[in-house]
Amino acid sequence: MAGPFITLTTDFGEGSPYVAEMKGVILSLQPEARIIDLTHAVPPQDIRQGALALEQTTLHFPPDSIHVAVVDPGVGTARKIVYAAIDGRHYVAPDNGLLGLVARRHAPSQIVTLTDRRYWRPVVSHTFHGRDIMAPVAAHLSLGVSPGLLGEPCAQLVPLAWPEALTDGKQVTGEVCTIDTFGNLITNIERERLRSLGPPETLRVACRGQTICGLCRTYGEAAAEQVVALMGSHDRLEIAMVGGNAQKILGIGVGEPVTVSATASG
Amino acid sequence: MAGPFITLTTDFGEGSPYVAEMKGVILSLQPEARIIDLTHAVPPQDIRQGALALEQTTLHFPPDSIHVAVVDPGVGTARKIVYAAIDGRHYVAPDNGLLGLVARRHAPSQIVTLTDRRYWRPVVSHTFHGRDIMAPVAAHLSLGVSPGLLGEPCAQLVPLAWPEALTDGKQVTGEVCTIDTFGNLITNIERERLRSLGPPETLRVACRGQTICGLCRTYGEAAAEQVVALMGSHDRLEIAMVGGNAQKILGIGVGEPVTVSATASG
Amino acid sequence: MAGPFITLTTDFGEGSPYVAEMKGVILSLQPEARIIDLTHAVPPQDIRQGALALEQTTLHFPPDSIHVAVVDPGVGTARKIVYAAIDGRHYVAPDNGLLGLVARRHAPSQIVTLTDRRYWRPVVSHTFHGRDIMAPVAAHLSLGVSPGLLGEPCAQLVPLAWPEALTDGKQVTGEVCTIDTFGNLITNIERERLRSLGPPETLRVACRGQTICGLCRTYGEAAAEQVVALMGSHDRLEIAMVGGNAQKILGIGVGEPVTVSATASG
Repeated sequence: MAGPFITLTTDFGEGSPYVAEMKGVILSLQPEARIIDLTHAVPPQDIRQGALALEQTTLHFPPDSIHVAVVDPGVGTARKIVYAAIDGRHYVAPDNGLLGLVARRHAPSQIVTLTDRRYWRPVVSHTFHGRDIMAPVAAHLSLGVSPGLLGEPCAQLVPLAWPEALTDGKQVTGEVCTIDTFGNLITNIERERLRSLGPPETLRVACRGQTICGLCRTYGEAAAEQVVALMGSHDRLEIAMVGGNAQKILGIGVGEPVTVSATASG
Repeated sequence: MAGPFITLTTDFGEGSPYVAEMKGVILSLQPEARIIDLTHAVPPQDIRQGALALEQTTLHFPPDSIHVAVVDPGVGTARKIVYAAIDGRHYVAPDNGLLGLVARRHAPSQIVTLTDRRYWRPVVSHTFHGRDIMAPVAAHLSLGVSPGLLGEPCAQLVPLAWPEALTDGKQVTGEVCTIDTFGNLITNIERERLRSLGPPETLRVACRGQTICGLCRTYGEAAAEQVVALMGSHDRLEIAMVGGNAQKILGIGVGEPVTVSATASG
Repeated sequence: MAGPFITLTTDFGEGSPYVAEMKGVILSLQPEARIIDLTHAVPPQDIRQGALALEQTTLHFPPDSIHVAVVDPGVGTARKIVYAAIDGRHYVAPDNGLLGLVARRHAPSQIVTLTDRRYWRPVVSHTFHGRDIMAPVAAHLSLGVSPGLLGEPCAQLVPLAWPEALTDGKQVTGEVCTIDTFGNLITNIERERLRSLGPPETLRVACRGQTICGLCRTYGEAAAEQVVALMGSHDRLEIAMVGGNAQKILGIGVGEPVTVSATASG
């Protein structure tokens, strides 16, 4: 029996030997573990981008998977490390907001502060708790250790500072919250926010001098190099350049304001 | 029984959470699947580079492997998605030329246009068919679904626009078709094209002002920083700088013309 | 029985199809092999960085793992390829110093020069011995082939040119030997070297105009953007910028001298 999947999400960078160290620690404790890389390309110490990557990916995995996330600028300080059960999935992460978006969708059913050193490596460094605490805890979980044994119950997670989109009935104001490898500008404006404004083809999207009239359904519906707006594959509004890289060509980064309004006809 | 391997080739970028989403979808349907990343570093929407990566790698995998390839600028438009059986291997890809180089070596023995939604995710986005159609279809194939059930038979694949090298008996003209991570300039000139021109040590290779007399066998046969020509590990002519990066130092990119001629002695 | 792990360490670049070719060759010979990527981000042809990656990661893996390392500027020349048993682990690599740091910790118990072509691919290129020799040899090892059958016994490995830190009792002189993805400057000064100088909080670290008084325990103990020195997770002295990238901001690269001295109070 191979046991549940263990996934890894870090800001170590693709190809970092730190990731390999975590895998070695897990496989030495549980040689049958099946480890999946979610991403190691979270920008260094960017908790919000890490939270987005977890929200985007972990829901697609089988419910008993164990998701280890290490974006941990406070490593070795008083910040806690937690186990959290959320929507039937298991998470191990520093308690710094990294689980904030998955916990926003589903309230955690159990939170445990990791304090029992029996499930850690015998020697724990001050600077790499991903390897010395989180990896062995994940291995023990996959071997069947009950989460309650890992430490003390914890009432709630540290919240994530997250910019919610605002609406006044006629207009929705949000911002670019992440940018994918194609340069598509993905906003914090979710599909249901836009329903009351009118049908997609009547909406007007404004962002740094660009005004886009009407959402399209997919990139290939417009001419090359046209800037389009559409609902992306995670039900968030997204601004893209057909056949090109909107981020580079428009020079827009994370945090840029985006407004959606109903057209005058309404 | 672990079932056949499922490999993934995309232009999502190394570390893209989009890749992890595809893996989650596959593993949720078939937890025993063994997924191998071929590459996610295909330049965005570059069908030709994706086709080269598939040609270079898939022949090394066991014959029953399932190769999923997503370089899909037309996602959500009228372009089809196909299953193809080629040389005993299984491919799932948009029908946009991405399978053109593997199909150039071996004619497909079966092509099916994916139309049966029973093998897709229940909700299909307009912008991510890798996750919503191709990943679940690969999982179902690995579970034993017969390819013929996936949709309608298709007579032939959309061809790839591919620059074939030309020869006039005394000279072969081609171009740089891809560049590896070492900066080696790999051409579309295959080994057999050069046989009639004479033995390797008598050939003259010209590319953007560089003239190289004689092919060498391997990089370390010449002095550091010398520009050399040789047959690479895929039997294509390649131009390299010993201990350096020919791409950066010569400033040569994909598409640059390359000529090989017999020396005057002939 | 899945057999031992096979790990891969190369300078091919993350996402290189060359890595996928090696995996295909291994899995075609041994479909049950479990392959783990250690890193493919070793800078091109940088044997010392490859040696560091192996030292950092392989000790965390189960003892019978097979570690294949390909940083091989001399591919196809007279340099040998070796199997080495080191500290209960199995290594397959070009004999060019790449195993120098693991062999510095533990003397190899067996070294074999790979010469028996029965364990290679039938056709061997001049430029890709990772695929044509090392990958199939690793697969055969994982299938139980005795290392002694792979070729001729070899007395010792080619040593690695490695800059040892020097000490004169009052001062330790070393250099930056690697830089991680956070921009942390990791030196060749190991923990035990500093013991005789005094307690960590009394040490003075100097590097390119920066003077740091006292080591801290972890990054988060100092204010943002402060430059700190600490013992990293591999027991080497490291210089870091809190919440920032020391490499970029200080403009310091591999090879930069670093000095540690006791403060005057001693």
